[in-house]
Amino acid sequence: MREVAVIGCGMTKFGELWKKSLRDIFVEAALKAIDDAGVDHIESMYVGSMTPGLFVGQEHIGALMADYLGVAPIPAVRVESACCSGGMALRLGFFEIASGYSDLVLVGGVEKMTDGADVTYALASAADQDYEVYHGITFPGLYAMIAKAHMHHYGTTRKQLAAVSVKNHYNGSFNPNAQFPKEVTIDQVINATLVADPLTVLDSSPVSDGAACAILVSMDLAKKLNKPVIKILGSGAATDALALHTREDITTLKAVKDSAESAYKMAGIKPSDVSFAEVHDCFSIAEICIIEELGFVKKGQGGPFTEKGNTSLEGKIPVNPSGGLKSKGHPVGATGIAQVVEVVEQLKGNAGKRQVKNAKIGLAQNMGGSGASSVTHIFQI
Amino acid sequence: MREVAVIGCGMTKFGELWKKSLRDIFVEAALKAIDDAGVDHIESMYVGSMTPGLFVGQEHIGALMADYLGVAPIPAVRVESACCSGGMALRLGFFEIASGYSDLVLVGGVEKMTDGADVTYALASAADQDYEVYHGITFPGLYAMIAKAHMHHYGTTRKQLAAVSVKNHYNGSFNPNAQFPKEVTIDQVINATLVADPLTVLDSSPVSDGAACAILVSMDLAKKLNKPVIKILGSGAATDALALHTREDITTLKAVKDSAESAYKMAGIKPSDVSFAEVHDCFSIAEICIIEELGFVKKGQGGPFTEKGNTSLEGKIPVNPSGGLKSKGHPVGATGIAQVVEVVEQLKGNAGKRQVKNAKIGLAQNMGGSGASSVTHIFQI
Repeated sequence: MREVAVIGCGMTKFGELWKKSLRDIFVEAALKAIDDAGVDHIESMYVGSMTPGLFVGQEHIGALMADYLGVAPIPAVRVESACCSGGMALRLGFFEIASGYSDLVLVGGVEKMTDGADVTYALASAADQDYEVYHGITFPGLYAMIAKAHMHHYGTTRKQLAAVSVKNHYNGSFNPNAQFPKEVTIDQVINATLVADPLTVLDSSPVSDGAACAILVSMDLAKKLNKPVIKILGSGAATDALALHTREDITTLKAVKDSAESAYKMAGIKPSDVSFAEVHDCFSIAEICIIEELGFVKKGQGGPFTEKGNTSLEGKIPVNPSGGLKSKGHPVGATGIAQVVEVVEQLKGNAGKRQVKNAKIGLAQNMGGSGASSVTHIFQI
Repeated sequence: MREVAVIGCGMTKFGELWKKSLRDIFVEAALKAIDDAGVDHIESMYVGSMTPGLFVGQEHIGALMADYLGVAPIPAVRVESACCSGGMALRLGFFEIASGYSDLVLVGGVEKMTDGADVTYALASAADQDYEVYHGITFPGLYAMIAKAHMHHYGTTRKQLAAVSVKNHYNGSFNPNAQFPKEVTIDQVINATLVADPLTVLDSSPVSDGAACAILVSMDLAKKLNKPVIKILGSGAATDALALHTREDITTLKAVKDSAESAYKMAGIKPSDVSFAEVHDCFSIAEICIIEELGFVKKGQGGPFTEKGNTSLEGKIPVNPSGGLKSKGHPVGATGIAQVVEVVEQLKGNAGKRQVKNAKIGLAQNMGGSGASSVTHIFQI
């Protein structure tokens, strides 16, 4: 396989972008990434998006974005794996370059969620329609069950869940692209409006519009471009049952574990070699489970590990320096690439007040639904 | 790049499959393909599907199908490019093997269109929502405008359009998987219910359920499996403006031309080297334009060329021996892979009464929307 690198990134601010359409925000992020990379063309495009059909009645957005960006007739395709559509777009762009077919590929993600669609119904299409959604459950309820089980089995506390949100909002307060760049306290999280017991609205990532893009190149081309080169060391993806009730243990996100093991193996590194990670904290409990699956802490110990500050900017393994989905926002299809934007900025040392010290190897973990799909990438400067 | 081959295929019957769900039909096709290939595992999956969200409220179908097929935790992702989602799934599976990352990949396509959704709205999401659909036009109207322009510029006749449907229904009458395996006459096509002038319901592909799958392997692995090996000689994809009114000439399907040129170049062949082709005849006029763009006949001459029988089973260049979208059915996401199923069966000499003589090189051309995306593959036995 040929080696592949990231040489440029860009993203929109995340939030309620009512004055901009789906295509506007994608093109804004794409132009920023192209500018950042300093390239004058691209050869192919992958657009991660979960459900533009249900959100704004528009499918076929690979071709749409290529046209609106002014790069048609290049090949362009949409990639979907629910909330890890962005991470999957990166992975498939990586394959295209690794194969030798192309040298310069744009990978992006976009979602426009605030334009009036039934957001809860649209998001629930990532769960099992026949065996979960039809019977009335949606994602807050699914993650609340995971949280309850984790509390029961491992003694995880309500306060430990809240510590995830407090840490991520602190980090996000330094991120100019974040939807909610402000701090929250443990008490505020616990006493916020209950969404699905034990999760409150401040345990939950918001509904957002946004887009993010990255430019991938073959390592040979990267070396010629005289830009900081972020190498993709490893790519792993995995699947699990969609329906929570069919899994052996609902506190285990097996696809996350499998995707991470695959990425570590390809990269030839251990979890302890990772300098920092961007992970899929769609709900506070998700981050606690994920840091366990990634091998940063033993199974069941994610709660105390977080509460003690080990995942803070100055901690043993900083997690979600960007503010994560919680503070930065979660336009579902864009999230996986927004994680890459943060990893690249951190590795370049450009992250300002949220800069992780000695950032050499960054990990991005992006997840679909209640964990039925996951993709993990490892990057090195 | 590593060489890639197809070693097995399978598909469901196309039609109104009311007793089977989205996941049932995909798994049926996948198991047939796995059986046909004689393999005992797969490493990764690509599922082409246009809009399962709008049709049946279910996204995240990469993971869903991996789980239901019993192959989780392998990586699985959905690929979307409107009606060429299937062809794009093939292309991305091809890249994964060509890169050296995997040796054995299932590529498939599926759509469940007859379960009660607003099919016209769902399909229209492949056109430009803001600049076309919002103003009231849907696909029959768009293709009717292409037909009118082609008739005006090139003298194409109503009878020549009908000749496409007559030929495809004749071929489809020999295809046990076809939704409408019966012959029609020129008079029946012309006098059928008008959908959008000049196109009648018998110029139009039907609304269908169905799935199709193929097993791709590296050439090294193919040689060990002691099975007929169909080599993928070339893969080309391209995009064009979604909105018809922004194209320079609406009788030219530029993405089809570009994707074909790219595939011919990679394969190192000319149009005259192709033994037969499966092409995207979503409406009769589409096949006429496509055979022009593929270089089988000069621009503007597709009508007379078809009327004279050059694209029939015994003609100069047989087109749509399977019956095409018109007779076989058009479950949109499945169509691109169903084309591959036909190409493989023809190259193996297994096509029975619809067998093309001396079939050595087959071409499959799959298109999205009114031609904003196209993917072309060339295969050789």
